[in-house]
Order: sequence, then C-alpha cells, then structure tokens
Amino acid sequence: MAVLKKTPLIAVTMGDPAGIGPEVILKAVGMLARRPGAPNIVVVGDWDVMDRAAKGLRGSPRMRKWSSTDKPVASADGIGLLESSRLGDETPPPGKPNLAGGQASFDYVVQAAKMAQSGQVDGVVTAPISKELWNRAGHHFPGHSELLAKLSHTRTWRMMFAGGELRIALATVHIGLAQVPGALTRDRVFTTIRLLDDHLKSQAGYAHPRISVLGLNPHAGENGLFGDEEIKKIAPAIARARREGIKVDGPLAPDTAFIRRRGSFGFDGAVVMYHDQGLIALKTLEFDRAVNITLGLPFVRTSPDHGTAFDIAGRGVASGESMAAAIQYAAQAAQTRKTNARSVA
Amino acid sequence: MAVLKKTPLIAVTMGDPAGIGPEVILKAVGMLARRPGAPNIVVVGDWDVMDRAAKGLRGSPRMRKWSSTDKPVASADGIGLLESSRLGDETPPPGKPNLAGGQASFDYVVQAAKMAQSGQVDGVVTAPISKELWNRAGHHFPGHSELLAKLSHTRTWRMMFAGGELRIALATVHIGLAQVPGALTRDRVFTTIRLLDDHLKSQAGYAHPRISVLGLNPHAGENGLFGDEEIKKIAPAIARARREGIKVDGPLAPDTAFIRRRGSFGFDGAVVMYHDQGLIALKTLEFDRAVNITLGLPFVRTSPDHGTAFDIAGRGVASGESMAAAIQYAAQAAQTRKTNARSVA
Repeated sequence: MAVLKKTPLIAVTMGDPAGIGPEVILKAVGMLARRPGAPNIVVVGDWDVMDRAAKGLRGSPRMRKWSSTDKPVASADGIGLLESSRLGDETPPPGKPNLAGGQASFDYVVQAAKMAQSGQVDGVVTAPISKELWNRAGHHFPGHSELLAKLSHTRTWRMMFAGGELRIALATVHIGLAQVPGALTRDRVFTTIRLLDDHLKSQAGYAHPRISVLGLNPHAGENGLFGDEEIKKIAPAIARARREGIKVDGPLAPDTAFIRRRGSFGFDGAVVMYHDQGLIALKTLEFDRAVNITLGLPFVRTSPDHGTAFDIAGRGVASGESMAAAIQYAAQAAQTRKTNARSVA
Repeated sequence: MAVLKKTPLIAVTMGDPAGIGPEVILKAVGMLARRPGAPNIVVVGDWDVMDRAAKGLRGSPRMRKWSSTDKPVASADGIGLLESSRLGDETPPPGKPNLAGGQASFDYVVQAAKMAQSGQVDGVVTAPISKELWNRAGHHFPGHSELLAKLSHTRTWRMMFAGGELRIALATVHIGLAQVPGALTRDRVFTTIRLLDDHLKSQAGYAHPRISVLGLNPHAGENGLFGDEEIKKIAPAIARARREGIKVDGPLAPDTAFIRRRGSFGFDGAVVMYHDQGLIALKTLEFDRAVNITLGLPFVRTSPDHGTAFDIAGRGVASGESMAAAIQYAAQAAQTRKTNARSVA
C-alpha cells in the first residue's frame, strides 16, 4: 500500500445559483468532514450565493475566499471559495433561475477545467446546471461532459455511473432507442470497454479488473434469433479487448446481468449498450447514491446523479448524499491516480 | 369480503420429464401444504417420472392417481396425478431429454388446457419444457403462451410477470431491440394497458388498480428530443385508456420508474415497452421469486420464471420457490375470479 502523501484538492463548481447546488455542496462537505481522509475543497462559484445557502442551513462548514496562489483550505477548516462570479443584483432567488446565473454556471465549469488541466486541483466535481439556460446564454452543449471534452480537446469519452458495487459504462447515452442499434459499432463497444478498463485500473484501484459486457437484445439475442448485434458487433469487440489483455466476458443476457450471486455481481464494471439498460438497474438498486463519472478526460471528473431541482431549491430539503458520494469518488480517484503515477515514474 | 366456498383445483403440467419440473413441483407442493389456503393440485404428467423424483427427495407429498371424474385430492392428502403419458422404456433419465419426453410434455399442456376450458380445473400452472424438443416433435410454438392461445382461440394476449410488489405487463416480448420501435403501435400499447387492468381487477383483487406506463426512450424522450414514440404512440394510448375509465399515468422515465418512494412503487402494475425494460428491474429486485402470467386467456395460467435446467435435473438442488409462487398466484387468481363471477351473477 502506498502511503497517502497529500490530501487531494477537489474543485466543486457551484452549478446554477438558483438550483440546489449550493445547498447540496454545503451539506456534502459537512457530511464528509466527519469521515477520515476528507479531501480539501475549493468551490468555484459566487460568495453571496454560497453565503445565502449557508445561512439557511444549520452547522454549515466555514467558508473563506481562496485564490489559486493560496494554500488549499484544509478540510478541517471548512472550504475555500474561488469567486468566479459576483452576481450582485442579478443574483437569482432560489428556484427562479435567470440568464446571468446560467452564464455564471457555465463560467464556473470553464474555470474549474482550467485549474484541473494546469494541475492546480486534482479533480473536478460539478453541481447541476440548466441546459436550457446554457443554450439561451449561447453555449450549445447538451451537458457538462461535452463542454469538458471540448475544453480539454478530448475526442473520445464515455459516461459512467457508480453506485454501491455497481460500475457501469455506457456505449450510447442520450439518443432515442430506435437509434441505438445503428449507433453501436464494434469500435464504439471496444472503446467503451477500454475506457472503463483504464478507469478501473488508474483511478478505481483495481490491479486486474473484471469487466462484463451486456448484449443488446433479449437473452443476448439467443444465437441470432432476436437480433444479430451480439454476433456482429459485441462479441468481436469483446474478442479484440481480450487480445489487448483486458479481462472481459459477455455478451451477457441483460435481464440477469445485475443479479448478485453469492453476494457479488461477478464483475468489477459492466459495459451497457444503452442508457436505460444500465440506469434501470443502477437507479433501482442505488437511487440517490449514484455518481456520474466522465471516462476519457485528462483529469478526474464526477458529478451527483441529480438535476438543479429548482422546485425544491432554497427549502433546505435537498439530499447531499449524491454530492457527497461524487466528491468522495473524485477524491479517491485522484488519490489513486497520483499513487499510480508515482509508482510508474 | 366473500366467504371462501371452495378450495381451487389447479392443474400443474409436469414439463419435460428430463428437466427439473417434477422435482420443483414436489418441493413447491410441500412448501405450500404448510400454508393456510393451499390449493388442491392435480399434476398432469407421468406416474413413474413423478415417483422417481419423489424417491429422490425427503418428505415428498403423497401422490395418488386421479381422473377427471374423481373428487379433487385435498391438499392435506397430497396431490392427484392425471396420467397423461406412460413413457415406460422411453422415459428419459434426468438431464438427458429425448423426443418421447418432449412429445409427452406437449400433451400435458393440451390436456391441462382442455380441463381448464371445460371448468374441471380452476387454473393451469406449467412446468418448463424444451422449445427445441417441441419443435423436433413437430410442434412449432415459441412457448406455452402461444400454444395456450391457439388452443383457446385467443387472438390477443400479453406476457406479464409478478414478483414481490412488482406486476409488469410487456407490450413486446421476444423480438430484437431494433424491431421494438416498429412493433409498438397505439393499439398494442392500449391493449396491453387494458389486459393488465382486466387482470388486476378480475384476478388480482384490485377494485381500482393504478397502472403506470413507461416511455420507450431515455427520460421518456424529453419532449421529443430523443425519439417521438412517447408523443405519437404511448401518450395517445394512455389517453384512450383514461377515456375508457382506466386509472393510468405515464409515460414515465424508464430509469426511475421502479424506485420505491416511501416504500411504494406508486402503481399496482406497470406496462413496459420491451422485454429488458421490465425484466432488468424485476430480476434485479425479485430474482427467483417471479411468476410468469399470461394475460388475455379465458382461464388463469401462470408458470415459474425458469427453464428446464437439464444441467441440474435429478440432483435435488433445484429451488421450488418460483414454482410455489406460480401455484399460489394461480390459486389466488382463480379464487378471486370465482368470487368476482359470483358477485356479478
């Protein structure tokens, strides 16, 4: 075991100022501060908005202004805040998002990506934003992942989710079900396996991860009886991954893939062919505890698995569980990544 | 509450003589005999095969030969056996299926369907058969449901699964994922809702069942962004069902549909668009306890949610849980159906 040398510093973007981001960040940091190995946190956001959220909660962590030339604020002392916006009069009330807030929520992510790329922080966690407001502010990205991929010149990335013992990488994501069979190619399936394997080794701490790949069709096609994607695309992608030394099996019948046998799923990570194939199992088993991870970026990036929840913002009722899980996952991934880098060097 | 007047008589087909059918039937009847309200059972099968299975198990229920002119064997006295085959020298050893056994397993179902249609039994439970052997014996049916539909002149039927609190009716079943969007029509979705509503009312005992319908696409299409089947097919089917007095909502985002909120799914039954959309949730939550039900037949029909398991037949290790659940579900459905029929008459 490597000795832990340095507490990771994680940048957490504040998300939409009118959403539950500020509140769940404060709750999550409060929860994590009581656990051993809590990371140091810098929130990239707006002082007044964070302050407003803190005043609405009991026992919020302390905040102090922080700039990239300062030493990290130690987790025991609360959180650092990098002022990336001063919304002032344009600050949206909780639950009432506006364009200035949408623009600011975009700027936080750009700032955090810069810090991650230059090595000032060890990972990025993003609080939820409004896609609609990003669009209205002229930023046409379907979500954080696409923006971070562009900012870091990453061509190939994949969405992954982790919750409990489930780690799932998605071959396709936000497309209609009718488009899925056409979007699947051998290359796409192979690349998803490879990126998941990389992540499990370099960030999740598995020396020899076992990966399972699901089929596309009922019973994984039953030898071509219900579709031939398993034969033509998925099995060849698995064979290629095996030739490249990855420990992988499949295609598995999708409906029985997520059944625990003697307490174990039988794999460390699974590659699923489409959004709901993975997320029905994940949300059914691990609702509220799942973390979204972007595979393939040059830095660690996670986010909670929920949205801005404008309808409950400012009421103090949002759960900080998923944000806490996202920060903890990022911190552990960053730590593992550094340790691996040192042992390779 | 209606007074229970008569214990239901359930016909259980023995399934393939070389599979785990005989064993799981005996185990299931043994388990049910200790519970209040156990149904009376007649096994449609082969005396010697059942006797061989009984000798391999401790504490098997007693068997006696039964014909349709006899009084039902009371559950406390064991089970009746209707000799539908006398395989003799052609009896396959456990795990070594043959054509004679495949033909016999077909005959059992034909016999049980006749008894159900004439009212001699109150429901049919089928033990697993080999599709391949049915085919080799000249009976080209993908499974029990198709055969029972043909025998009872049923044009419209659907597959349903029940396990724990989950009750799921499938709009499409054993087709490739690429065929699902084309196979879905307003009519198909509407009919699935209607058949599920009928079942919940007439057989499952719900006076005012609440049904939820899932979307086809991620996030139920997000207003047409990822596919328009929700707008063009599913929502209109839901609207029609509402006009006909059915309590139904949707289309729900598939990935969050099976999350319990305050302990409840929020519906009594769900309509899913394709096989794995329902079965990933069902098997992940309720593996080994799920029951398969055919909706739309003129009689009650259930089966356990497993196959012949030739690899473990005769070893005494198969679980009788799913068969017990299938028999119990059929008995309750038959009882409810009779009570409803009486209160209507």
